[in-house]
Amino acid sequence: MSVVVLTGGVGGAKFVEGLVQVLGGSNVAAIVNTGDDFTHLGLRICPDLDSVMYMLSGKNDPARGWGVVGESWNFMSALAEWTDETWFNLGDRDLALHVLRTAALESGESLTAFVHRMADKAGIDAALLPMSESPVSTILTTDIGILSFQSYFVEHQCRPSVSKIRFDGAAEARPGRSVTSALAAPDLEAVFVAPSNPYLSIDPILAVPGMTEAISAAGVPVIAISPLIGGKAVKGPTAKLMAELGMECSNSTIASHYAGLIDGLLIDRSDDCEGLRVARENTLMRNADDRKRVAEAALRLARDEATT
Amino acid sequence: MSVVVLTGGVGGAKFVEGLVQVLGGSNVAAIVNTGDDFTHLGLRICPDLDSVMYMLSGKNDPARGWGVVGESWNFMSALAEWTDETWFNLGDRDLALHVLRTAALESGESLTAFVHRMADKAGIDAALLPMSESPVSTILTTDIGILSFQSYFVEHQCRPSVSKIRFDGAAEARPGRSVTSALAAPDLEAVFVAPSNPYLSIDPILAVPGMTEAISAAGVPVIAISPLIGGKAVKGPTAKLMAELGMECSNSTIASHYAGLIDGLLIDRSDDCEGLRVARENTLMRNADDRKRVAEAALRLARDEATT
Repeated sequence: MSVVVLTGGVGGAKFVEGLVQVLGGSNVAAIVNTGDDFTHLGLRICPDLDSVMYMLSGKNDPARGWGVVGESWNFMSALAEWTDETWFNLGDRDLALHVLRTAALESGESLTAFVHRMADKAGIDAALLPMSESPVSTILTTDIGILSFQSYFVEHQCRPSVSKIRFDGAAEARPGRSVTSALAAPDLEAVFVAPSNPYLSIDPILAVPGMTEAISAAGVPVIAISPLIGGKAVKGPTAKLMAELGMECSNSTIASHYAGLIDGLLIDRSDDCEGLRVARENTLMRNADDRKRVAEAALRLARDEATT
Repeated sequence: MSVVVLTGGVGGAKFVEGLVQVLGGSNVAAIVNTGDDFTHLGLRICPDLDSVMYMLSGKNDPARGWGVVGESWNFMSALAEWTDETWFNLGDRDLALHVLRTAALESGESLTAFVHRMADKAGIDAALLPMSESPVSTILTTDIGILSFQSYFVEHQCRPSVSKIRFDGAAEARPGRSVTSALAAPDLEAVFVAPSNPYLSIDPILAVPGMTEAISAAGVPVIAISPLIGGKAVKGPTAKLMAELGMECSNSTIASHYAGLIDGLLIDRSDDCEGLRVARENTLMRNADDRKRVAEAALRLARDEATT
């Protein structure tokens, strides 16, 4: 039995890793947000794909919460001697993937093929699938103007107030062939929506034409894991964003955001939600045991839903 | 009064720095070999331009003899986890120039303009001029096959026996506008050929159509500094190469190689040379005083020649 999981950054990557612990990597396919991808200093950077890659290969830095363990910053220090364009931190070790990916794409290799090759090298059995081959860019309308995702997230550290989010290129994008075949797998048991930011990490995936249709057509339970605990986001701008977009920061808002897509929502033990099947678990993921526990709870909810 | 110097790698860069000490940077223009340039992992790498850049900005590593001081190798260590293509060492700090240059060329900036911008940032007054804008590639016929320069020099550490050297792209190359205007400067006093490898570092420069003509047309003394001391090269494959190409490793060979181009040769005190005007100096350059002394001796020889 296999599962598919829609995922964004580090929080999503943790949940994917939990699924891999429970089911084994070969039974897990992650459809990864590429709306945060951008080209910086000529390098093609795919933060969410790398977050999952680092997490599943054990190269992630659990202390810092992002990037590669054992990272150093000598490239950045030299860069600052030559240019003022230093707002985006590129670690010396992290650079390896960016340089290799840029060269691969330049030589005509697809992003999916590149990720597959790197995952293979890192001993990752799970399928890491970019949501689409063609670029999609998350663009935010804010009180200081139109910002690309990384400009909002890193350069301006999520400080600007957001009034609108759009996904440039989404209309022309298509789910990759590996994405549609993962969703059409005969042994597919469930589709999960990882506890990532619904508006910035999951919506770009759902904006790819054909994606929601392929998920529905799978005919399996679709379960989301709420990114909120106690009415707050564990990390990142989810809660701030919900307030700016005029929404209550609650699981009910999450549930109605995913209405029509999901069959159930896994929420934290301290929380409530109305209007659809929920299960409760301690959803804070600080270590491998936490990740396994949350994945098991999500699987239980999916299986309960399937037998209802 | 200004001077122009033709230069290759680290040895040449030392001589250029000596000239800058003696004359001030604004009176020195270096025409730099780009025949060693190559694209590696999608990055455009110009080793000789960087050698001069690092030397003149004081960023060079005098202990290692090449690259940047304070260098670290964490990029390479991470790279090795993803790929086997690790034969060319890219330091974390050195990467900054490669990434910036690749992005600049990709965006349409010329190599000359990029080098000028970086030199300016590093407080370098001397003009650092790529020998041509269009790429020229030094290619060696060896006993193990046809090799690009970096494959011969780095991957195979100069071990293969060389039977022929050619400069692909030279026929279509032209000296950059800054190159010809430096050679046409009304206050030009002398042209120097740095103590670089004549066959691998200087010949590519001379192979650019119009280069030797522009040097002759300058009508000033042309002085070479021999790369040999005691019949041996201070560093690199010069002596080995001369033997493989069937030439005696001597200053007379150097002099006849440059016949028609140079008016005088600066050689080491321990050496001899027949057939043209020579001057002797201790030409080993281990520190700033050495570099100044050699530059002064070369200038004296040029001025002697001018008053003859």
